[in-house]
Amino acid sequence: MSSRPDGQTFREAAGSLVEWIAAYLDHSETYPVLANVEPGHVKASLPSIPPADPEPFASILDDVDRVIMPGVTHWNHPSFFAYFGITGSAPGVLGEMLSAALNLNGMLWKTSPALTELEEVVLDWLRKMMGFPSPLFGIVMDTASIASLCAMAAAREALGLNIRERGMAGRSDLPRLRVYTSEQAHSSIEKGAVALGIGLEGVRKIPTDDAYRMRPDLLEAAVLEDRAAGWLPVCVIATVGTTSTTSIDPIPAIADVCTRHGLWLHVDAAYGGAAAIVPENRDVLAGCERADSVLVNPHKWLFVPIDFTAFYTRRPDDLRRAFSLVPEYLRTDDATTNLMDYGLQLGRRFRALKLWMVIRMFGTTTMQDVIRGHMAMAQELAHAIDDDAEFERAAPVPFSTVCLRAVPGGVPDEDLDRFNEVLMHRVNGTGEAYLSHTRLKSRLTLRIAIGHLRTERRHVWHAWALLRRHARELAASWRTPNAGGVP
Amino acid sequence: MSSRPDGQTFREAAGSLVEWIAAYLDHSETYPVLANVEPGHVKASLPSIPPADPEPFASILDDVDRVIMPGVTHWNHPSFFAYFGITGSAPGVLGEMLSAALNLNGMLWKTSPALTELEEVVLDWLRKMMGFPSPLFGIVMDTASIASLCAMAAAREALGLNIRERGMAGRSDLPRLRVYTSEQAHSSIEKGAVALGIGLEGVRKIPTDDAYRMRPDLLEAAVLEDRAAGWLPVCVIATVGTTSTTSIDPIPAIADVCTRHGLWLHVDAAYGGAAAIVPENRDVLAGCERADSVLVNPHKWLFVPIDFTAFYTRRPDDLRRAFSLVPEYLRTDDATTNLMDYGLQLGRRFRALKLWMVIRMFGTTTMQDVIRGHMAMAQELAHAIDDDAEFERAAPVPFSTVCLRAVPGGVPDEDLDRFNEVLMHRVNGTGEAYLSHTRLKSRLTLRIAIGHLRTERRHVWHAWALLRRHARELAASWRTPNAGGVP
Repeated sequence: MSSRPDGQTFREAAGSLVEWIAAYLDHSETYPVLANVEPGHVKASLPSIPPADPEPFASILDDVDRVIMPGVTHWNHPSFFAYFGITGSAPGVLGEMLSAALNLNGMLWKTSPALTELEEVVLDWLRKMMGFPSPLFGIVMDTASIASLCAMAAAREALGLNIRERGMAGRSDLPRLRVYTSEQAHSSIEKGAVALGIGLEGVRKIPTDDAYRMRPDLLEAAVLEDRAAGWLPVCVIATVGTTSTTSIDPIPAIADVCTRHGLWLHVDAAYGGAAAIVPENRDVLAGCERADSVLVNPHKWLFVPIDFTAFYTRRPDDLRRAFSLVPEYLRTDDATTNLMDYGLQLGRRFRALKLWMVIRMFGTTTMQDVIRGHMAMAQELAHAIDDDAEFERAAPVPFSTVCLRAVPGGVPDEDLDRFNEVLMHRVNGTGEAYLSHTRLKSRLTLRIAIGHLRTERRHVWHAWALLRRHARELAASWRTPNAGGVP
Repeated sequence: MSSRPDGQTFREAAGSLVEWIAAYLDHSETYPVLANVEPGHVKASLPSIPPADPEPFASILDDVDRVIMPGVTHWNHPSFFAYFGITGSAPGVLGEMLSAALNLNGMLWKTSPALTELEEVVLDWLRKMMGFPSPLFGIVMDTASIASLCAMAAAREALGLNIRERGMAGRSDLPRLRVYTSEQAHSSIEKGAVALGIGLEGVRKIPTDDAYRMRPDLLEAAVLEDRAAGWLPVCVIATVGTTSTTSIDPIPAIADVCTRHGLWLHVDAAYGGAAAIVPENRDVLAGCERADSVLVNPHKWLFVPIDFTAFYTRRPDDLRRAFSLVPEYLRTDDATTNLMDYGLQLGRRFRALKLWMVIRMFGTTTMQDVIRGHMAMAQELAHAIDDDAEFERAAPVPFSTVCLRAVPGGVPDEDLDRFNEVLMHRVNGTGEAYLSHTRLKSRLTLRIAIGHLRTERRHVWHAWALLRRHARELAASWRTPNAGGVP
C-alpha cells in the first residue's frame, strides 16, 4: 500500500504553513484588497486532471502563492470595507485547526459530548456578553441564511397546521401564508421563504421610516389587512443592523404587535448583535428578550472565522417539532439533547472551539475595545463626510458602517448614480481599499463597513482620502467629457 | 487599546498545537473510541462566565486535554466503525488552517475568484476520478442534507408552477406533491421534504428487494397510482450506498422510469460515490450520468474533514432559478458565476482547499489503495461472519460496511434484538471499538462500517474478536439469568 500523509507529514507541512499564516495575519495589507484577475485565470493556471502520485506540501504552498493568492479578494485585509467585515483571527484559526483534526460530528450528544456541551457553554457566554437577561436554548448553525430558514420553519410548524406531516400543496384547509419583514431585510429571508414554499409573494415587506427602520404601525396594519383578506400571518422577522444601512428595527414596538397578534418574532441580529457585548451599547438588543428566536453571527464582527451563526430560541420544542426525525440508525436511549433534532443538517462541525478560543485568547475586555474602536472610527468618518460639501451621508450610523454618496458640484443629479458607481470601481481598482454599494431611496449609495480586527484609523482615513481624490478627478473629467473620456 | 492576538501569538500557539495534532493523528487509537462521561460533565468542568482578560494558549490547550478530550468520541480513531467512518487527515487539516486564515466568503466570484475557480477545478478532478463521462456543473455545499434539499427545490421549481413566486399554501391550482425514495433512504430526504413544505406524506417510500435496493417496478407503479389519484410527482431520490446496508439502488432502471415520466432524478451517493474512484468499482455509479443531480461526500470516505459535499447537476439553470435572488448590495456587472445563486447559504467557506490538498498530498493512487483496502477488509470480515455459527450476516457487502447479528445458541429468537443491543453497548463500553446499529426487516442489526484512513486489519479483527467474546459471555449469562443478571 502506498504511503499516506501522517503525523510527521503534518508536523513538517504545518510548520511551513504556520509561518505562512503568521506572516499573512501580520501583513495581509501588503496585498491588493480586491483581486485583480480575469475570470478563468485561476482555473487556467491549474492542471485539469488530478495527480496520481503524492506531491510535496512545498509545491502546494508554492501554488498557493503563485496561483491562489493573486485570485484572492482579501477579506482579512484591514482595508476591506465592503459588505460587512469579517476576521480570520489567530485564535479562530487555531480553533479551526483543532476542529479539523478532531473531526467530530456533533449530530448526537454521544457522538461527541464535548462538542454538544462546549456549544452550550460558549453560547451561554455569548448570551451573557450581549446582556440577554435569562437563559435561552442555543445552537450553532453555519449561516444566518439557514438559521432564519429554521426560525421560519419553526414558526410555521407552531401554527398547529401539521405542515410537517401533510405539507402545504393541495390542501384546501390551508390559507396562503405570510411572513413580515422590512423592505431593508436581508435577502436570505426571501430565499428562506422560497425554500419553505411560502414564496416571494408570501413575504410582505413593511416600509421603513426615514432612518430605514421598520414601521410597527404599518406592520400591524399589514397584518390586519392580510387577515381580513384571508392570509395567515406566520411570523415577523425584524433586523438589528440591516445590511444596507445597519438600521435597527424598533424591536419593543414590533414585539408588541407580535404579542397582540400571536406571531412568532425572529430577530436577525447577524451583524448588530455583536455590538451589544459593549455594555454602553446594550440597548441595541432592547426588546430582543421578548423574541421567540434571535440570531447573531460571531463570524461577522466577533473575529471568528466563517462559518458560525449563534441561534437562540425561547421555544426549542417548536424548533425540534419542526425538524426532528430519528431513524433507527440514529436512535439513542439516553435523554440527552441531540443537536441534529434542532436543525436541517445532520452533519455538525465542532464550531464551538473557535468561539471558545477567540473569547479566551482575547478576553471580553479586548473584544469590547475593538468593537468600541470600530464604532468610534465610523463616527469620525461620519463627521468628516458631514463636513465635506462634495459628499453627503446617506443614513444614520448606529454601528460601524457608514453610507455615503459623492455629490460633486457640476455633476448633474441624474448622473450621480453612475458617478458613484464609477467612483467605487476606481477606488476598488487601486487595491488599497474595497467598498461596496447599495441603493437607498432608489439612489446608488456607497458603504464603508468597518469591522475587521486589524482596521486602524489610518486605514479608514486612507479610504476616505482615496474617495475624495478619485471623486475630484472623476468630477473634473465628468465636467469635460471630451477631455476625460470617462462617462 | 488592549493587545490583540496577532501573527506572533499565532506562531507560538500554533507551534504547540501542531505538535499536539501531529501526536493525535498518530496516536488517536490510544483514546477510548466512545466518550465515557456522564451528561453534563464537560459543561460542569468549564466556567459559566467568559474571561474578561486574555488567557494564554497553554491554559486552553491544558483544558483541551483535561476537559474536552475525555468528552470526545473519537471519529478519528481507527476503530471507529459506527455510522460511516470519516477522517480528519493531515492534508485536510492543512486545508482548513489555510481556509480559516484567508477567511474568504465565496458568495460572489469577485469576492474571491480563487475560491470559485478552485471549487470548479477540484470538483472537476473528483468527477474525473469517479469516472463521470462528461462535464457537470459542480458546487461545494456543507452537507448532503442541504444538497438533497436543494435538489428537491430545483426539481420542484422545474415543474413550472412558479412555486418560487407564489408559494404552495392556499393555491387551488396546486395538487399535492410527491417525491419518491426508497424505504432505505437517508432521513435527510424526509427532513428536506418537511422543510420544503412537501411534508412527510409527500415522501413515498418505495419498498426494496431482498438486497435493500429500491424496486423500479414498484416505483413506476407508485408514480402511476399517484398520478391517477391526483398527486403531482416531483422527483425520485435514489441512493448509492444506503445508510443501513450500503445497498445500491438500480440507477439505470430508475433513470428509465424517470425518463418515461419526466421526473427529476437525484442520486444520493454521499457514501458510495467515493468507491468509484477505484477503476474496478466504477459500475457503482452506472446510470448516474443520466441523473439530473448527484451528490458525493468527500467528508465521508475521501479523508476530507467535515464538512464538504460535492453537488453536481446537469441542470444548473434550474438550480439557479430555484434560488437566485440578487439584492442591490450584491449586484455585480460581470458575467461570472456567483455561487450564492446556486444554493441556500450566502456565506460560503473556502472548502475547495481541503479537497485540493487531500488529492495532491495523497495522489489518486493512494486514495484508491485506501478505498480498496477498506473494501477488502470488509469482505474478509463478511467471510468470517459467514463462517461463524453464532453470527449471521444481515446484508450483502457492496462497499466496506458489514451488517451482522449475533444469533447465539440458547438465546430465544424473541430476545435477539435486545441481546444484540446489549452486545453492542458492551463492545462500545470497552472503548476499544465503536459500532452502531440499524433495523433490517424489523430486526435489530449491528453495523461495522470501515472507512477511516488509519483503519488496519488488526483493528477490524480486534472488533470482531470483541464481538465474539462478549457475545459468548453475554449468551452464557442470558441462559442463566439469575447467575448473570444482565437481561
